[in-house]
Amino acid sequence: MPNNPLVSDRNVEFLLYEVFDVEALCHLNAYEEHSRETFDLVLQNARKFAREVLFPTYKPMDEAPAQMVGGGIKVHPAMREVYPHLVDQGMVAATRPHEVGGQQLPHMVATVCALYGMAANLSAVSYLGLTAGAAHLIEAFGNEALKAEMMTRMYSGEWTGTMALTEPQAGSSLTDVKTRATPTERGHYLLRGNKVFISGGDHDLTENIVHLTLARIDEAPPGIKGVSLFAVPKKRLEGGKLVPNDVHCAGAFHKMGWRGIPSIALNLGENDDCQGWLVGEPHRGISYMFQMMNEARLMVGMQGIATASAAYHESLEYARTRPQGRPLTSKNPTTPQVPIIEHADVRRMLLRQKAIVEGALALGVQTARYADLAAHGATPDARRRAFLLLDMMTPIVKSFAAERGFESNALAVQIHGGYGYTSEYLPEAWLRDQKLNSLHEGTTCMHSMDLLGRKVVADQGGALRMLGEEIAAATARAASAGVDAGWGAALDRAVGTVGEVTMHLAGLGVAGQVEEMMCHSMDYLDLVSTVVVSWQWILQAAVAKEKLAESPSHASSDLYEGKICAAEYWIKTELPRVEQLAHLCRSGEGSYDRMNAAWF
Amino acid sequence: MPNNPLVSDRNVEFLLYEVFDVEALCHLNAYEEHSRETFDLVLQNARKFAREVLFPTYKPMDEAPAQMVGGGIKVHPAMREVYPHLVDQGMVAATRPHEVGGQQLPHMVATVCALYGMAANLSAVSYLGLTAGAAHLIEAFGNEALKAEMMTRMYSGEWTGTMALTEPQAGSSLTDVKTRATPTERGHYLLRGNKVFISGGDHDLTENIVHLTLARIDEAPPGIKGVSLFAVPKKRLEGGKLVPNDVHCAGAFHKMGWRGIPSIALNLGENDDCQGWLVGEPHRGISYMFQMMNEARLMVGMQGIATASAAYHESLEYARTRPQGRPLTSKNPTTPQVPIIEHADVRRMLLRQKAIVEGALALGVQTARYADLAAHGATPDARRRAFLLLDMMTPIVKSFAAERGFESNALAVQIHGGYGYTSEYLPEAWLRDQKLNSLHEGTTCMHSMDLLGRKVVADQGGALRMLGEEIAAATARAASAGVDAGWGAALDRAVGTVGEVTMHLAGLGVAGQVEEMMCHSMDYLDLVSTVVVSWQWILQAAVAKEKLAESPSHASSDLYEGKICAAEYWIKTELPRVEQLAHLCRSGEGSYDRMNAAWF
Repeated sequence: MPNNPLVSDRNVEFLLYEVFDVEALCHLNAYEEHSRETFDLVLQNARKFAREVLFPTYKPMDEAPAQMVGGGIKVHPAMREVYPHLVDQGMVAATRPHEVGGQQLPHMVATVCALYGMAANLSAVSYLGLTAGAAHLIEAFGNEALKAEMMTRMYSGEWTGTMALTEPQAGSSLTDVKTRATPTERGHYLLRGNKVFISGGDHDLTENIVHLTLARIDEAPPGIKGVSLFAVPKKRLEGGKLVPNDVHCAGAFHKMGWRGIPSIALNLGENDDCQGWLVGEPHRGISYMFQMMNEARLMVGMQGIATASAAYHESLEYARTRPQGRPLTSKNPTTPQVPIIEHADVRRMLLRQKAIVEGALALGVQTARYADLAAHGATPDARRRAFLLLDMMTPIVKSFAAERGFESNALAVQIHGGYGYTSEYLPEAWLRDQKLNSLHEGTTCMHSMDLLGRKVVADQGGALRMLGEEIAAATARAASAGVDAGWGAALDRAVGTVGEVTMHLAGLGVAGQVEEMMCHSMDYLDLVSTVVVSWQWILQAAVAKEKLAESPSHASSDLYEGKICAAEYWIKTELPRVEQLAHLCRSGEGSYDRMNAAWF
Repeated sequence: MPNNPLVSDRNVEFLLYEVFDVEALCHLNAYEEHSRETFDLVLQNARKFAREVLFPTYKPMDEAPAQMVGGGIKVHPAMREVYPHLVDQGMVAATRPHEVGGQQLPHMVATVCALYGMAANLSAVSYLGLTAGAAHLIEAFGNEALKAEMMTRMYSGEWTGTMALTEPQAGSSLTDVKTRATPTERGHYLLRGNKVFISGGDHDLTENIVHLTLARIDEAPPGIKGVSLFAVPKKRLEGGKLVPNDVHCAGAFHKMGWRGIPSIALNLGENDDCQGWLVGEPHRGISYMFQMMNEARLMVGMQGIATASAAYHESLEYARTRPQGRPLTSKNPTTPQVPIIEHADVRRMLLRQKAIVEGALALGVQTARYADLAAHGATPDARRRAFLLLDMMTPIVKSFAAERGFESNALAVQIHGGYGYTSEYLPEAWLRDQKLNSLHEGTTCMHSMDLLGRKVVADQGGALRMLGEEIAAATARAASAGVDAGWGAALDRAVGTVGEVTMHLAGLGVAGQVEEMMCHSMDYLDLVSTVVVSWQWILQAAVAKEKLAESPSHASSDLYEGKICAAEYWIKTELPRVEQLAHLCRSGEGSYDRMNAAWF
C-alpha cells in the first residue's frame, strides 16, 4: 500500500492562509480567541489522527460491514475501538459556541479538519457528523429540557444522533411523510411509522441514539406544511434510567459502499409505546430541516471531496512508482520501463483529478468562509451577503463534488490498471463510496432545481449579482498578477453568459412556463458549476503568480507551478463547455420532455 | 425484482432485419444454408436461455465469488449446474465453420445471441467466450496435432481455454513478457514464469484448461519480436490419461465485479515440468494475438453494451412503476404520487441510457456486419473494404461501450435513488461489472492510440475515406426519408471536421512529432466515437422515418418514434461537442504534457 497523505497539507495551508486568509476571521468577535497557532494545532491533531488511527480501520470496516445480531446492529470491532478517540477529537461540537461545549472554531478550519477524517474513513466519521447535525437542530429549535437531556449528551458523544426523514414511499418527496404523532397529556407524542435509510440508525457504540424524526401530528394539514420535527430516542429516561422506547431496528441495507456505517430500516411504535418530543413548533419541521440543510449538504460536499482526494493521492503515488512501458519516442525494449507518470495520458488523468479535487476543495473552503461570515460577519449587510452566497454555493459544492468526484474516483481506478479493479488496492472501494454522494441529502437533480428555482433568483437576482462581483474581483486580481489575460477574459464572458441564461430561464418562470424553465436544470447546474470552479482556479492561479513574483525560487514553487498548470487545464478544457450548455438551456432542446413513456 | 427483458427483442429485430438486412448475407456462399428462420430460431433459444436459465444465477454468483480450496478454484454451484447447458447452446463455435464443428452463423447473429447471455450473466458466458478465442487461435495458427487434441475439445466445451498474456511487470506492455520457454528434443517446450489476471485461469468446471500463453523462447530477440505463443494445458495427455502439467493456481484476485469468473495468478513450471506446445512459428506470438484481437475486443464491446442494456431495462421498469413526487405544476399533496418516469429529469436519464445502449448496439451490429463481409464478402475488394472498416470500428465499439456504458450504468443507479445504492437491487452490481471494460483487452487510452496511430491512417487514409462514404450514404438516406435536414447537415460537417483534424495530426506524425500527435488521442477517440455513434443514430432515424411513412399507424410506431426522439437527443446534445474536441486536438493544448511530476 503506498504511503498516502489522503489530503495535501501544503494545499490546505495554501487555501486557508494564502488564498482565503482565515486569520482575518480572528478579527471577528466570535473567533477572537483563535489565531494561526490554534488553527495549526487542531489541523495537526486532525491529520495525525486521520492518518495514524482512522485510516488503518478503513479497509477492515469496508470488508466486514456492521451486522444485525439479535435485533440490533453490532458494529465492526475497529469501530468500537476508535469511537472514543473520535469523540476526543472534539469534532461533534467543533464549530459550536463555548456555551454548549463547543470549540467555536471557524467552519473554514473545522471543515478542513473533518476532511482529513473523511478521507481516512468516511463511515467512521459520519457517526459523529450526523450526531452534530441532529444536536444542532435541538440547539437551534429545541426547548431547554431537550437541550439539557439530549443535546448535551450528543455534543459530548455520549449519545449519537440521526436524521430520520426518509420513508419507503417518501424518499425525495418529504411532503409524503406518513409517520404519525399522537399528542398525549404528558407532553410527549406517541409515534408510529417506518423510516428507511437511516445512517447510524442502530449500533452498539453508545447506550442511546436520538432520532430527529419527521412525522405528522394527528389532524395536521396535508402536505409539507403539516410535517413536524420530533426527537425520538432509542431509549428514554425514566426515573434516571434508560428504558426501551419501542424503536426497532427492522434490518440493515446492504450497500455498495459506506460499509462502515449501517443504513437502517426503523419501525417506530410497533407496540404503541414510542415516545417523541416535539422540537420547536408544530408543522414547522421541514422549515427547521431546511435551515440546517446548508450544513449537512456542505458536509456531503466535503465527503465527496475527501473521497476523491484520498483516491487522487493513491493514484499519484502509484503512478510515480509503477514502471510500465516506455516513452512513445523510445521503444527500445532493452531500456528499463518508466514510471507510468511519464505517459501523457496518465498525467492527463492525474491533472484532471487534481483539477477536480483541488477546484472543489477551494470552493468548499470559500463556501465555509461564507458560512462563517453569515453567522458572525461584522455587520448585518455582511452577514446577509455571505448568507446569500453560502446558500447559492451549497448545492454547487454538494453536487459538483459528487458528480465530478465520481469521475475522478473512476480515473484513480483506471490509473491502477487491472490492479485498480481488485480489492487488493483501495481505489475501487472509494469509487463505491463516492456513488452515494449523488443520492443522499438530495439527488443531483434536486440540487439543480434548488439552484435554478430558488438560489439564483433569490433577492431579485441579488445573489447572482454578488457572485458576479466576487468573480470579477478574482479576474481583476489575476490580471494584475500576470495570469494569462485570455483566461480571465474567457471567465468574464462566461459569467455574462450565466447572467443571460438565468434571465432567460427566470423569464420563463415568471411567464408561468415552469416546466420549460426547469427542463434543463441539470445543464444549468453544470454550466454554473463549471464557471464557479473556473473562478476558483483563476483565483488560485492569481495567488500562485503573486507568490512566484515575490520569489521565483520560492520553496513552494512546485506547488505554485502546479496550480497554474491545473488552472490552465481547467480553463482550456472545461470552461469552453459553457457555450454549449448555455445553448441547451436557451434553446429548450426538448427531446426528453417530448419522449413518451411508451417510446422507450 | 422487476421483469427485465435484458435486451429489447424488438430493437434487435429492428437492427438485424430493418437497418442492417442480415438476410442479405445469406446470398454469400458461407451463409447460404441460413435464412431468417434459422436466425430467429437461434435468437429465440438464446433469449429463452438467457432469461430463464442464466439470469437467475447472476445475483447468487455475484454474492459468492469462486473460492480457492486446496490449491484450486471451486466455482459457485450454480455455475457448475449451468455450464453443460451453456455448452449445449453452441456458443463456443457459433461462427466457426462446419468442418470444426461450428454452426457457421454470421457474426451479426452470433454477436446478438451472445449479447443476451452477457446481459443475463456476464461472468458465466465468459468462460466460453474465452474458450472460443483460445480455440480460434489454435484453429488459425496451430498444427493438426494441436487441433485434434485441444481445439476440438475446446470447441465442444469439454475443455476450456484462456488467454495468458499479462505478467506482474507486463500489463499493457507485452514487450516486457518474461515467461521463458526452453525447447526440448521431444517437440514440446518447458515453460517457467508467472501470469496474472487470467480470467477462468482455474476452475472445477471441466477436467482441463488450455492456456494460450505468451512466452520467450531461450535466446529469442528482445522486445515484441521475440515473443512466441504456446498452448499450455493444465493437464497433459500421457498415454491417453491426463496428468498434472506443473501449472499452479497461486490465488484469485478479489474483484469489484465479474465475480462469477475468477481472475487467477498462475505459476508455470515451479517444478520444471510445465510442457507447452508452440502455436505457429517462433517469435510471432504477438502478431497472432493481434490477428485475433478484433474478435476479442468486439466481444468486450458487447460485454459493455450488454451490461448497460440490462441496467437500462431495469431502471426503465423501475421508473414506470415507482411512484414518487408530483408534476412541477401540480403540487397538491392530496393527489396521488406519479411514477417517476413522469419527471423530465428521469426521462432525460432514461433517454441518455437508451441513446448510449442502442447507439452502441447499432454500431456493434454494423461492425459485426463488417466482420462477416471481411471474412466472406463476395470479392477481394469487398473483403478488403470491410476489413479496414472492421479494423477501424473495433477500438471505437470497445471503448465507447466501456466508457459511456459506465456512465449509463451510473444513471441506472441514480434512477433507483437510495435503493440503487443497495444490493437489494441489481444496478449497483452492473455498475461494478462495467468498470472492468475500460481496463481489460487494452485500456481506453491504448485504443485511442490504436485508432489514431494505426487505424485511421491505414491504407493512406483509405479507411477513413470509406467511413466518410458510409456516413454520407446514411445522411443522404436520412434526407430522402424526411429526417430533419439540420441533423444530417450537422453530421456531414462533423465528418469534415474529423477529416481536417486527422490530416493535421497525421501531419505531425509525418514530421516526427509523435508525442504532439498522440497527446490528445483520448479527445480524438471521443471525437470520432461521437461522430460514429451520431451516424448510427441518423441511420436508425432514417429507417424509422421510412417505416412510419409506409404506414403512420404502424404497429411498431412507438419504437420508431422513440428512435427518432433518441436520435434528436444525441444529435443535439452530443454531436455539438465535436467542435470543442476538435479544437483541443488541433490547438495542442499542452497543460498535462507540460505538467511536471513534481508539481502534483
